[in-house]
Amino acid sequence: MREDGNEAPEDGRGAREDGRTSQGFWYPRTATGRSSLLPPPPWHYSGDLLTVEYRTDPARVAELLPPPLDLSPDDPGAVALIWADWQSCGDDGAELLDPVRAQYRECFAVIRCTYQGEIYSRCAYIWVDKDFALVRGQYQGYPKKLGSIHQTRPHPFGRAAPRIAAGGRFAGTLAAADRRLAQAVVTLREESDTNGFVNAHPMAHHRWLPSIEKDSPDTVSELIRSGSASVEAGPAWRGAATLELFDSPTEELARLYPREIIGGYYRQVGVTWDGGKVIG
Amino acid sequence: MREDGNEAPEDGRGAREDGRTSQGFWYPRTATGRSSLLPPPPWHYSGDLLTVEYRTDPARVAELLPPPLDLSPDDPGAVALIWADWQSCGDDGAELLDPVRAQYRECFAVIRCTYQGEIYSRCAYIWVDKDFALVRGQYQGYPKKLGSIHQTRPHPFGRAAPRIAAGGRFAGTLAAADRRLAQAVVTLREESDTNGFVNAHPMAHHRWLPSIEKDSPDTVSELIRSGSASVEAGPAWRGAATLELFDSPTEELARLYPREIIGGYYRQVGVTWDGGKVIG
Amino acid sequence: MREDGNEAPEDGRGAREDGRTSQGFWYPRTATGRSSLLPPPPWHYSGDLLTVEYRTDPARVAELLPPPLDLSPDDPGAVALIWADWQSCGDDGAELLDPVRAQYRECFAVIRCTYQGEIYSRCAYIWVDKDFALVRGQYQGYPKKLGSIHQTRPHPFGRAAPRIAAGGRFAGTLAAADRRLAQAVVTLREESDTNGFVNAHPMAHHRWLPSIEKDSPDTVSELIRSGSASVEAGPAWRGAATLELFDSPTEELARLYPREIIGGYYRQVGVTWDGGKVIG
Amino acid sequence: MREDGNEAPEDGRGAREDGRTSQGFWYPRTATGRSSLLPPPPWHYSGDLLTVEYRTDPARVAELLPPPLDLSPDDPGAVALIWADWQSCGDDGAELLDPVRAQYRECFAVIRCTYQGEIYSRCAYIWVDKDFALVRGQYQGYPKKLGSIHQTRPHPFGRAAPRIAAGGRFAGTLAAADRRLAQAVVTLREESDTNGFVNAHPMAHHRWLPSIEKDSPDTVSELIRSGSASVEAGPAWRGAATLELFDSPTEELARLYPREIIGGYYRQVGVTWDGGKVIG
Repeated sequence: MREDGNEAPEDGRGAREDGRTSQGFWYPRTATGRSSLLPPPPWHYSGDLLTVEYRTDPARVAELLPPPLDLSPDDPGAVALIWADWQSCGDDGAELLDPVRAQYRECFAVIRCTYQGEIYSRCAYIWVDKDFALVRGQYQGYPKKLGSIHQTRPHPFGRAAPRIAAGGRFAGTLAAADRRLAQAVVTLREESDTNGFVNAHPMAHHRWLPSIEKDSPDTVSELIRSGSASVEAGPAWRGAATLELFDSPTEELARLYPREIIGGYYRQVGVTWDGGKVIG
Repeated sequence: MREDGNEAPEDGRGAREDGRTSQGFWYPRTATGRSSLLPPPPWHYSGDLLTVEYRTDPARVAELLPPPLDLSPDDPGAVALIWADWQSCGDDGAELLDPVRAQYRECFAVIRCTYQGEIYSRCAYIWVDKDFALVRGQYQGYPKKLGSIHQTRPHPFGRAAPRIAAGGRFAGTLAAADRRLAQAVVTLREESDTNGFVNAHPMAHHRWLPSIEKDSPDTVSELIRSGSASVEAGPAWRGAATLELFDSPTEELARLYPREIIGGYYRQVGVTWDGGKVIG
Repeated sequence: MREDGNEAPEDGRGAREDGRTSQGFWYPRTATGRSSLLPPPPWHYSGDLLTVEYRTDPARVAELLPPPLDLSPDDPGAVALIWADWQSCGDDGAELLDPVRAQYRECFAVIRCTYQGEIYSRCAYIWVDKDFALVRGQYQGYPKKLGSIHQTRPHPFGRAAPRIAAGGRFAGTLAAADRRLAQAVVTLREESDTNGFVNAHPMAHHRWLPSIEKDSPDTVSELIRSGSASVEAGPAWRGAATLELFDSPTEELARLYPREIIGGYYRQVGVTWDGGKVIG
Repeated sequence: MREDGNEAPEDGRGAREDGRTSQGFWYPRTATGRSSLLPPPPWHYSGDLLTVEYRTDPARVAELLPPPLDLSPDDPGAVALIWADWQSCGDDGAELLDPVRAQYRECFAVIRCTYQGEIYSRCAYIWVDKDFALVRGQYQGYPKKLGSIHQTRPHPFGRAAPRIAAGGRFAGTLAAADRRLAQAVVTLREESDTNGFVNAHPMAHHRWLPSIEKDSPDTVSELIRSGSASVEAGPAWRGAATLELFDSPTEELARLYPREIIGGYYRQVGVTWDGGKVIG
């Protein structure tokens, strides 16, 4: 008899013949699965994206691509640095009624690569501010760390927020380990057909898990492809952008230094993610 | 010569005849005033308010009213517990381009009182999550502590957010010192003429500053009146609400326990605050 | 040519024949390895342990043991809830000169089990307050979440700290997602031969990584054994203990409710961890 | 009748003849006083101090001294930047059994000045990481902001901590608003008669509270003197120090740039503070 009334495991993984079980999509796995830090996919996201696209030295992109990934032949030094202010939830939406478990922010650098003749996006660096987002990264091959991420929010009233409209100015800032790593400002000019091109492909990520045994090869080293199962979005806006990256003893984002700004973008989106595929 | 190029003091307070100065609206006061944790008013705010109005035992309201404040004769036990998700800035809006200094959240309990024949609102308890918001409270007579405050955000896209529309469900949660103190859920039903009545009056607050000397009367004990210098707002929505308050060794919010829920509200607002008046 | 002067990869994993590389023990893997959230083991720890040992219903322990793990025949309901206030670092100690990267706190529940005739300790639940500690958990099979963890610190001077001596009172508290989950107080009485018996065995943990593909078996599901490569410690102290566990919609620590307190312990330790072994 | 069983107000301030009361040393003042963010003094502190003393341009010190305060004639450009890792509590020590309310860290810059022929220490800038510490600053005239403060902790065991002994290396770091502001390293060489000289005098602080009314003089502008009511301490250690200060749009600590390092210090102390005196 369980006092919590939660008899139904959320996920079948781990059920055993003798009745003892280890339920849950993620750690901790328990008899009920209720404690799992993550519900099973699909995962739903609603949020705002602030994007700065720019060009760096293509060699700095190439050095982040383990073979057999290769540079994109078209605009090989293109990078997108993206801030996102999210709510996310599992399929039952329970997190939305306990929003400390739904809200998080992230900032991530996306580059492009080719694999077997196809162009992919690839997240090179990413910082988030909640544990559930961090371990989703571990699962999806995003190289997540914790950071402190802020982006200006639009609001329809008052003088303490821009509107999503021509002249609206949005800033993004990123810090980790008590050092500021990036700051950007985008001033909207006009609606745009796209929200940029660097993060517009399926993602090609490595899932790596080092062996628990010393001097042994990685327990997991697989290349996966994943993307959104569905997307809805408002109009994209574009405009002028400024970007500053700062060095840190433990970060290399600044190696992707901006040689030339391509542009800035703002878009509100709703996304569902529902699994990927091992491709290498 | 100053390397920071900031020659112009932001605020004239503290200027001295001999050229040595102590500039700045708030601590730290320096030669330039640039370090002040607060710019001088006016202060602008854009944000969303999630409100639950309810009735408690009027004696619990009365015990929070030092004489000569008295209970409101009409609905004396009415309380509003309000979550707010803000951006705020000074008159130059600089904080909006460094949003870590603009964004904060708060949860506060408002009661009503009478003074010299007029009805006032009065903040009994309030928690915020940034230092600039905390010290503004000290200045304005809000009894602020730090807390962890979350409220569901509306978003126009995707499954991870409600819309501001009939059926939209918004939750608010509050914790301080690692204990949850309050949680509420409001389900929107219809547009409303008001955003509630408890927080609809000018505020009557005490500014208290204890003496640095032991066994001495307060250095400051003044009753002030303040309110918004200007307000713009979207339509208010109302609906059903649930509210739970939890006890804590260091908090008394739960003494204002809900006997009867009046209703829940949601509204987006833009507000400017620009000073108050000493009334007692 | 690299402007950071960090030519030497910290860890050979990921080096490729064609000169393009993917260095680093953990994410993000880069050309230099400098960004990795974790250095390669060995990892060194210095800190204080506050332990409460107690007995719960053995069925609550059993339900956390996936076969072929079994209950310990001796005192099968024994649990240790342990608070730890750590500094940790890699082999070069660099984190100690940037202590935001060295200091973290954790609270964890340990149970015991048998596997192939040997008794193991096993961490059932654990909360930490830094990202590097969280992903070390992913690597070592600790089911880590982020939490807010505090424990009273001893200090030799003043009235704001206990001494590690008879009569010293030490408290531990744990919260996650803005809810308090546990609090304990231990009052030291005397030196002790041990720091408890529940966490005294090698750890038997599962490393699980779900497949990126839906409806597929876990990519990793392995049972590992690990323990400290070396330990040094001060005298252990024991005394009376109180313990309260609180329920939460997303946590199950309170299912391991205390039926009977065994005792409380305090000990200062230095530990090195340097890898484990796959045993199932 | 009160369900919380807390009948006894902690502090007599605010008691009224008609039985309605407003108890508590600090906000919020309530019928019981239980909610007050601060207990009344005395306040007790146990902690470790990491100090770097250095000389800056005396003009940079002078500009922080509003008349009638003057530069110290002896070594007028001397500054102490001090990190402190504290537990603190009121006279009943209750915070020590709920350590989230007891533990905080701070970093502060101290200069010296003369007033009426006596030398005083004066805190020019200070950052803390808890609300109770922030408002104590407001009360005592410390210009506190919130920050993220870390300092290496000594520990007697293991490789992840220095010892308080020759060769022990201790670092301090400070960040606010997601920017690093200061970092220092002190390498202990020998025991020392003093823990430095800059912070060795009574404090001369201004308590300022701006008027709630626009264009009005400060409601409070008083010069106070305060110091420890009692101190106990371990041996002071001194050694070589390095110090870096970083600029920020909202901070001026870097104006007190280091021209010459005097030395570094480490000391464990216990202190009691119990009120001050208005001197101007």
